[in-house]
Amino acid sequence: MAQLSRRSFLSISAAAAGLGFAATSANASTKVPAKWDETYDVVVVGSGLAGMSAAVEATAAGASCVIIEKMAIVGGNSNINAGAMAVTGTPMQQKKGIKDSPELLAEDMLREGLGLGDPVQVKLVAEKSLEAWEWTRKTLGVEWNEQTVVAEGGHSVARGCITLSGTGSTIIMKGIEKAKQQGAKVMTRTYVEDVIREEGGRVLGLKVRTGYKFPDASSGTVRYIRAAKAVVLAHGGFGADVAFRVAHDPKLTDRFQTTNQPGATGELWRVASSIGCNVIQADWIQCGPWASPDEAGFGLAVGFAQDCCAMYGLWVNTTTGKRFVNELANRKVRADAIINLNNKEQQCIAIADSNAVEVSIRESRPGHLEKALEKGCVFKFDSLAAIAEKFKIPMDVLEAEVKAYNEDVRKKAQTDAMGRLLQVGARPLENGPWYVSRLAPKVHHCMGGIRIDENCAALDVLTDKPIPGLFAAGEATGGTHGAVRLGTCSITECIVHGRIAGQRAAKA
Amino acid sequence: MAQLSRRSFLSISAAAAGLGFAATSANASTKVPAKWDETYDVVVVGSGLAGMSAAVEATAAGASCVIIEKMAIVGGNSNINAGAMAVTGTPMQQKKGIKDSPELLAEDMLREGLGLGDPVQVKLVAEKSLEAWEWTRKTLGVEWNEQTVVAEGGHSVARGCITLSGTGSTIIMKGIEKAKQQGAKVMTRTYVEDVIREEGGRVLGLKVRTGYKFPDASSGTVRYIRAAKAVVLAHGGFGADVAFRVAHDPKLTDRFQTTNQPGATGELWRVASSIGCNVIQADWIQCGPWASPDEAGFGLAVGFAQDCCAMYGLWVNTTTGKRFVNELANRKVRADAIINLNNKEQQCIAIADSNAVEVSIRESRPGHLEKALEKGCVFKFDSLAAIAEKFKIPMDVLEAEVKAYNEDVRKKAQTDAMGRLLQVGARPLENGPWYVSRLAPKVHHCMGGIRIDENCAALDVLTDKPIPGLFAAGEATGGTHGAVRLGTCSITECIVHGRIAGQRAAKA
Repeated sequence: MAQLSRRSFLSISAAAAGLGFAATSANASTKVPAKWDETYDVVVVGSGLAGMSAAVEATAAGASCVIIEKMAIVGGNSNINAGAMAVTGTPMQQKKGIKDSPELLAEDMLREGLGLGDPVQVKLVAEKSLEAWEWTRKTLGVEWNEQTVVAEGGHSVARGCITLSGTGSTIIMKGIEKAKQQGAKVMTRTYVEDVIREEGGRVLGLKVRTGYKFPDASSGTVRYIRAAKAVVLAHGGFGADVAFRVAHDPKLTDRFQTTNQPGATGELWRVASSIGCNVIQADWIQCGPWASPDEAGFGLAVGFAQDCCAMYGLWVNTTTGKRFVNELANRKVRADAIINLNNKEQQCIAIADSNAVEVSIRESRPGHLEKALEKGCVFKFDSLAAIAEKFKIPMDVLEAEVKAYNEDVRKKAQTDAMGRLLQVGARPLENGPWYVSRLAPKVHHCMGGIRIDENCAALDVLTDKPIPGLFAAGEATGGTHGAVRLGTCSITECIVHGRIAGQRAAKA
Repeated sequence: MAQLSRRSFLSISAAAAGLGFAATSANASTKVPAKWDETYDVVVVGSGLAGMSAAVEATAAGASCVIIEKMAIVGGNSNINAGAMAVTGTPMQQKKGIKDSPELLAEDMLREGLGLGDPVQVKLVAEKSLEAWEWTRKTLGVEWNEQTVVAEGGHSVARGCITLSGTGSTIIMKGIEKAKQQGAKVMTRTYVEDVIREEGGRVLGLKVRTGYKFPDASSGTVRYIRAAKAVVLAHGGFGADVAFRVAHDPKLTDRFQTTNQPGATGELWRVASSIGCNVIQADWIQCGPWASPDEAGFGLAVGFAQDCCAMYGLWVNTTTGKRFVNELANRKVRADAIINLNNKEQQCIAIADSNAVEVSIRESRPGHLEKALEKGCVFKFDSLAAIAEKFKIPMDVLEAEVKAYNEDVRKKAQTDAMGRLLQVGARPLENGPWYVSRLAPKVHHCMGGIRIDENCAALDVLTDKPIPGLFAAGEATGGTHGAVRLGTCSITECIVHGRIAGQRAAKA
């Protein structure tokens, strides 16, 4: 359908021949520059985990390569990632006697994704998780905590490896260094204005703006970068782009903040769609339910609201005084519950007493609560009554909720009134001081994106076939997570995809 | 980003000027034909309710107009529609003392759509429902049942008007006749191969194949149809297109049939995306949970499984012998429950005894059960035990389920064990003969589609601004229904959108 019309082609050729017009190719797109400013075999867009992995593999295969990053520093959201990666069959799992398999990981991802994940994509990521993790150790030299393996919500076993530094930026730094050693060039402050594709045909390269000053799309100098073999799109999600996210999910207005870095905007989602990619499931936008409106970005309150309150405390609607969701339901269920209440001008808070703090974050996150209190995103109260007074909560209802939970804890019930699994070590909520953080979901992850095949080739919306010269990887792609991206699966996806895309691009 | 590159424009112009190449426009798309075969002010794609409404309005405004329909007959899915339209403030509602308002309809649509509906689009449809209904009466001459108003699931009051004939085809026939009287031309068996748009600019017309033989995309003769003012895309959904629906929702494989006519395929969804439309929420694909795999299309079993069993009988998983969902939950919840069981090779059935038939369809749908039995999509059994034997259901579990339901009925409980509201007139299930239909969801409606503004202008994915010369209407558009399209809201959407698109296209 998008093929060059034979009739048009003939008429243009005839005119060109007759009049001496020097047609250099069958392509007549107005976007193809008369001259390219630079040429590389592989042009990688984005310097997060997916782009970094692609660049390391492309250069390892002998390709010349450039990484294009619009922000002043490399890494994107991967820099502010907590460094936890889902891997099956690690030595840590073996040490702890945890039975796991790629099949089990795939089953978890498909089930929690509500059947919207593409089984081929899910299998790809699950089957290559161990290899990807080994690669970060052996090829990049990333150090991992060899004592720990964590269980994130939705996973049926503990399989999350944590970097020794506790952040994802370690992997980025080591990886970018490796890519550079292998000859990759890194261009920061370079904005991709367009991906240049022959009409219905091959992707040729990029129109960029060097010396770009975020977020001014007219800043910088236009240059054309040719990809002799292929472009790899690894531009990440659009969590920070209110206009684009409202187009796909109208309830995520500017009332809601994001955990993402400010450069997580949607211009390349728009461009990818406009050049014939099939952008799927872009309306599945994950919000972190545990975030606080009293601080920017991912923030500190998360550690309190999730690890302490969601596990050992309560989440309460201040208007009714009642709990409103299973505090350990998946992120989608919890965030939607809060978003819908917020859009009705009702406020939700996370509550813990000193017992809850004691059995949760006091030891595992030393000093965390104090930092959050100092920052002003967690608040301290002498009593439950003081909380009720401050947030205008009906005290009798709130007290009844706490009492009901405490009774379940005392009789060692399996689940509480909201269906939450009671945690081992849970204690009744009764000892002050008490602590509160406000809850306002922040946009966290885009599950949808460019549809790809098992080689990470971007598929043409017209034909379902690969677009020649175009690969995609990481959060910019759709089909892996379906309705819900499980915690720790993002690093796995980015590295697995990025490596495949880089290998294939080098051979394209 | 998609604007004509100034540099390319200058270089082409210079070349053209220098070499005497007769550039007729700044556009250099290879798709624009040297010559158009026919020209109309307004070119409408699709002859269902949306396309018909657009053509009537465009011709009423004095525009020349053609309706392009790929199938041999006009009407598309609208022909097999049950003729029920959601309208607020009808004389029938007034007669019955039903208080309703556009605001209440909008509230119902937004709530059931889980906040994914665009408030602007929802308001548009809700506010114009009465005007659209009046228009079908006064302008088209459609007759409506003036005694009845029905309540479909998810609506908070009864507001569904039914055509006197009980089908949607009546509206189509009257409307197409009206459009023809006003000068519209109707071209059936005409396949749209491409929508021709200047690069980043205006939509100029269509590349079609006349004399097309469905489903052969290479059949027929290529012709170019120019739209002097605008193209209106009203091509409907893609429920019958397995490849395209699997791209967006991988679980809807060819295991699942569709209620749609066979021409409900996705080629224009692909084309719309490829020319720069923003195709949103295409992964929200509604399945009718009540359908039977023992007959094609919408079928007869629906009347039994829904009006009899879902209200007064039971839906049971044959593997476990247990009920598995609230039989009156929304379509999405019920269909997903069955799809997920079917994908695990488990079968679900709808069961009723003679008491259930008596209080439900015996009188309201005279002869219906007999027709369904004869067709072989509903089966008759002497006893519950015979059902258990036939479908290999654990009889003790099944008996316990029936007993539990019967006890709830006898004690006049408000809801039963699955949370289903018990119906007035419900009777214990205990009198043979018994009846069964098998349940296998069929793809029914595409909630997503082309993103439009309040003038039904298609929005450019690059800029969020209207694409000059392009409007869209009906099921081809996204943003009105969000997660769930409520029954009876489709006719309302199609007519409201179609009329606006036709009016605006005539003035474009």
